Amino acid sequence: MTATESPESKCDVLIVGAGPAGLMTAAWMARCGIKTRIVDKRGTKIFTGQADGLQCRSLEIFDSFGFADRAWKEANHMLEICMWNPGPDGSIRRSDRVPDTPPSISRFTECVLHQGRIERFFLDHMKEHSDIEVERGVLPVSLDVDEAQVDDEDAYPITVKLRHLTDEEAMPEQAKQLGATNGDGLYRSNLSPDDTDDLIRANREKGGTEEVLKAKYMVGCDGAHSWTRRQLGFEMQGEATDFIWGVLDIIPITDFPDIRQRCVIHSADQGTLMVIPRERGLVRLYIQLNEIKPDAASGRADRSKITPDVIFKAAQKIIAPYQLRYNYCDWWTAYQIGQRVSPTFSLHDRIFLAGDAVHTHSPKAGQGMNVSMQDGYNLGWKLALTVQKRSSTRTALLSTYTPERRAIANELIAFDHQFSKLFTGRPARDIADKEGVSMAALRAAFDKNALFTSGLSVTYAPSNLVHVRADAAPADVAPPESPHANHPPPKLIPPAPRSPLATRLPLGTRIPGFKVVNQASALPLSLHALLPSTGAFRVLLFAGDVTESAQAARVQSFCAYLTSSPSPSSSFLRTHTPPSIPLNTAASPLQLLTIHSAPRESVELLRDFPAVLHPFDEERGWDYDKVWADVPSYHEGWDRAYEGLGIDRESGAVVVVRPDQYVAWVGSVDMTAELERFFAGVLRAW
Amino acid sequence: MTATESPESKCDVLIVGAGPAGLMTAAWMARCGIKTRIVDKRGTKIFTGQADGLQCRSLEIFDSFGFADRAWKEANHMLEICMWNPGPDGSIRRSDRVPDTPPSISRFTECVLHQGRIERFFLDHMKEHSDIEVERGVLPVSLDVDEAQVDDEDAYPITVKLRHLTDEEAMPEQAKQLGATNGDGLYRSNLSPDDTDDLIRANREKGGTEEVLKAKYMVGCDGAHSWTRRQLGFEMQGEATDFIWGVLDIIPITDFPDIRQRCVIHSADQGTLMVIPRERGLVRLYIQLNEIKPDAASGRADRSKITPDVIFKAAQKIIAPYQLRYNYCDWWTAYQIGQRVSPTFSLHDRIFLAGDAVHTHSPKAGQGMNVSMQDGYNLGWKLALTVQKRSSTRTALLSTYTPERRAIANELIAFDHQFSKLFTGRPARDIADKEGVSMAALRAAFDKNALFTSGLSVTYAPSNLVHVRADAAPADVAPPESPHANHPPPKLIPPAPRSPLATRLPLGTRIPGFKVVNQASALPLSLHALLPSTGAFRVLLFAGDVTESAQAARVQSFCAYLTSSPSPSSSFLRTHTPPSIPLNTAASPLQLLTIHSAPRESVELLRDFPAVLHPFDEERGWDYDKVWADVPSYHEGWDRAYEGLGIDRESGAVVVVRPDQYVAWVGSVDMTAELERFFAGVLRAW
Repeated sequence: MTATESPESKCDVLIVGAGPAGLMTAAWMARCGIKTRIVDKRGTKIFTGQADGLQCRSLEIFDSFGFADRAWKEANHMLEICMWNPGPDGSIRRSDRVPDTPPSISRFTECVLHQGRIERFFLDHMKEHSDIEVERGVLPVSLDVDEAQVDDEDAYPITVKLRHLTDEEAMPEQAKQLGATNGDGLYRSNLSPDDTDDLIRANREKGGTEEVLKAKYMVGCDGAHSWTRRQLGFEMQGEATDFIWGVLDIIPITDFPDIRQRCVIHSADQGTLMVIPRERGLVRLYIQLNEIKPDAASGRADRSKITPDVIFKAAQKIIAPYQLRYNYCDWWTAYQIGQRVSPTFSLHDRIFLAGDAVHTHSPKAGQGMNVSMQDGYNLGWKLALTVQKRSSTRTALLSTYTPERRAIANELIAFDHQFSKLFTGRPARDIADKEGVSMAALRAAFDKNALFTSGLSVTYAPSNLVHVRADAAPADVAPPESPHANHPPPKLIPPAPRSPLATRLPLGTRIPGFKVVNQASALPLSLHALLPSTGAFRVLLFAGDVTESAQAARVQSFCAYLTSSPSPSSSFLRTHTPPSIPLNTAASPLQLLTIHSAPRESVELLRDFPAVLHPFDEERGWDYDKVWADVPSYHEGWDRAYEGLGIDRESGAVVVVRPDQYVAWVGSVDMTAELERFFAGVLRAW
Repeated sequence: MTATESPESKCDVLIVGAGPAGLMTAAWMARCGIKTRIVDKRGTKIFTGQADGLQCRSLEIFDSFGFADRAWKEANHMLEICMWNPGPDGSIRRSDRVPDTPPSISRFTECVLHQGRIERFFLDHMKEHSDIEVERGVLPVSLDVDEAQVDDEDAYPITVKLRHLTDEEAMPEQAKQLGATNGDGLYRSNLSPDDTDDLIRANREKGGTEEVLKAKYMVGCDGAHSWTRRQLGFEMQGEATDFIWGVLDIIPITDFPDIRQRCVIHSADQGTLMVIPRERGLVRLYIQLNEIKPDAASGRADRSKITPDVIFKAAQKIIAPYQLRYNYCDWWTAYQIGQRVSPTFSLHDRIFLAGDAVHTHSPKAGQGMNVSMQDGYNLGWKLALTVQKRSSTRTALLSTYTPERRAIANELIAFDHQFSKLFTGRPARDIADKEGVSMAALRAAFDKNALFTSGLSVTYAPSNLVHVRADAAPADVAPPESPHANHPPPKLIPPAPRSPLATRLPLGTRIPGFKVVNQASALPLSLHALLPSTGAFRVLLFAGDVTESAQAARVQSFCAYLTSSPSPSSSFLRTHTPPSIPLNTAASPLQLLTIHSAPRESVELLRDFPAVLHPFDEERGWDYDKVWADVPSYHEGWDRAYEGLGIDRESGAVVVVRPDQYVAWVGSVDMTAELERFFAGVLRAW
């Protein structure tokens, strides 16, 4: 076929770029059965280098898709951060040890695994759940949006021309030896110019094939040089600094004692080195390159001066008097520190941008891949429910994407700006040295940012998806202390409004994964295991102590309401479950989970809990996986979920959790009218 | 090729039968690189039914091969046992709840997974580590042993003729619909005659192909009707009872409240039902068939009278007044209770028998597959080290197989005899009813046998592989209480001799998997994760508090001895490591692991621990995975391994662990002469 023939095809969602943000979006599409294309200009996925840090929250998300165990098994777990700074003699010495991840905030801790493996898990997951496959060596070359059609939910207002590259074009020389000691480590660095336009031009000249694709929605996950963003005309805002850092992935041979710890080494006058221990004996070194400065006119560094040897020699000077050498280098690169963010992340709620396409910053805190994936995680279910026509209106869910994620991008940029300055600054010689960075300041920054870097401080502001009642405690009032040692202290709970019915559960944050015990089988499981990423909203009925007759009556009455007959008096559960789907089943967009606080042996599933809470199926019998107890387990202790969330053990509460595990609504079993209103704003009535 | 042509081939080990015992043996061969053939007369692995219970110890073993996580993820976890018996009105009612697995004895709890999945994990593991593949539709038809050659370690004294069946023969009609409601559930039951001879005869008549195989060693894992055992002329000893039980794997539809628990339901006069909840909503029911009795003359039941419907109706009567029905049956069978054991398990330490080939019993306590696998686990490494000529003599390791495993088989038979009687007996009407089984007696049997059924009570008697010094506390003296709540009480520690240097660590039992913290990275890991099944003996140096100078000197002196120059003064470590292999590396048959008790931040790996404990490699640098601390971890508490094992925190101890994780020797760092003698009795000097 020549380029003049342009077959036309259709899809619901087109994803441009198969990095972490694109793959995360595609994972949702795969789980929700959305007709999706995902294209990437590169001929292969990456095999070495690139991003590697995995935050707790990213692992929780992987777990919600069912593959956290693969990442957890292969990754290097980082437990401790060691700080090194100059001693009285000017030599570096260890000044502090702190836990890398604060205890008790997640089932997971930060860990490190090569981006290529993470992409592999996504690809396997997509294959398991759908026929969506990444089309490699394919890139968009033109984009048109028919504005007249953007409000029509059945329309395909987006027209994209896709060019199919030859294998040779999709796999340039640099990529073939990417990052190896003799390869070009700067290919994909922000020190290198973008090659997208060259690829398109070369392909046009050769007459490669072209295809016209009509799409309902499009997601640009095409990196810092985003072609999609350029078509939309969004300008990144922010600036670059003069600081250039090198990166080496090596198997180090050294007498430095903390080479298997995450370290920040601030030398007296040779700059800063960061150590990130990795899988397979590898260690990543981030090295400040004091001797290389960007050209004053162009703002860019001379790339020819940056080699693995230059980077390595800088590292040796910082880590002296310890010896450091290596025989094996897996990858290397260099980058210029800067922070930039796009003013908006979407056009007409039809075209969206995610990941590096809308925020760029320095990689040292291991945030980039995580925040990018979390963009895709925020967007994916909203897109899927909208395509499925389960959203109350076309934009009810989608319109929250930009405000929710741009706020996070802004926080990230601010964090990175502050953190990079502390990293790059010269260490203070003494207390009087006000221009230097004191170790105490660096330590304080680590402590303050521990929650941020875990990804667990993400708080979405009030909207139709995060309902804050007038009686909520404001964000600046700290949550109460928990009486139990295994619950996080208030400073590890994100500052956000909290309902008086769940005083330690901030609205707009992800619900913590406390362990609960299955009523029918005694199995202890994390609450998160009950909230897989399927696209369903969950109503968590904290039923309280149902052995108390007054409380039992309240729960019975709530359940009677839930199953009340069709309109005018039908419940939100009936209103928002399509008529063809039985209430509260796996196929339903709205599901119930019960967590009671009564002694498990004092209640019986079939006797004490109304049928709607554990529905009956003619083939499978009763559903035994929907009623749980906050009680001690035989082997895994007692997590005391009620206390941890600040919910009263007698009277309970109702918590609505979004498909992405974020808390959307907190109330009591009596507030049914308000629940109706909440769901009317997000899900379609049938 | 016709049957008259018989090509001759050679292998080190021939395994007959690819069930759990055979596959476990093959897993060792795969890990140790032994030239192995494994044949099975059946044309496929099984897909439904058969064994399903997985003990803690089996999961620990899977973990030592690296695939416990797959089993753990797919299995149904059994947490609680509910006992039901007749109330005053004669109706069944719940009388007791007990934990299925006693807390704190293992990282795992008992769980249930279909045998076919477990076989799949083994097959995948073999594929990952070797080119050993199960040859299906292949069975031995003749066996000769050249007795003149049995003592020659280079000889192939075993000659076996193997016949290769056609696909049609290897896959009989019954197998094709195995266990389905309309299929023959009794195919493979002990109520059915063996078909091996028919298969051979039919194949001979059709002129199938034949092969002559010479082997150094042979392992018969060919089931209760073992062809191999028959060739050796070993007669099973024991007897059958009149009791016949049926088995159904169904998705039950019921109002019985404990259908997702393990239950024993003793009805007043309709017999006993056992409930085993399984994966995918399935439940296995074991049902006493009171109305079917074996024929007095033949001792066999009339198989035509046993149908799924007959079995199910019996279950309904026992569980009444609760309702029970089903739409889906995955598998069914029936069996006659009996206990039999073979008088010996090997011939000339050249041919070995394992699994059902040497012990048969009733399946209800979920022991069969586990004990069979553990036979293979005990034998495999001994066989591999012998073939590799690492055993001190040809029979030094192999001669321990029969005594170690026959003792376990005898315990199993005794356990099953007692347990089956309690299960099958009529429940006592009241205290005066001496002929009935009291619920208290059944509960006591469950409590007493909890350790046995977990597989963790296995204790190998003193031998060259289990060294018991004169100063050991005898088996009948209970180990001391631990001051820490998370350590098992003395009744959950197997009764066996214990060294005064490790007062809670019985000799000949598997070492517990206490969590320790990596000195270099702060990673907490179970001790078991440091003892993978590679075939290596491990010397665990509990180095004590090395911040105390006297103790540090003792450890230095032990390490100086370890690396002392070649003979006459060379250490056991040098003597038993082949000269081509660096000391204490992954390839070595003898490895060191250090667990110290000093505060982790007070010691440095490179400064405080001699190099032999964390050897240097020119490509990989220092080994950071060999020195660990018994200290609190940031996220997973403090397991207090020293206290749990009864080792003094100041002065430590040395513990030798066999390749199968069983404790072989306990002493102090000063007892080097005794360590020499121990290793001289098991490993070859170079």
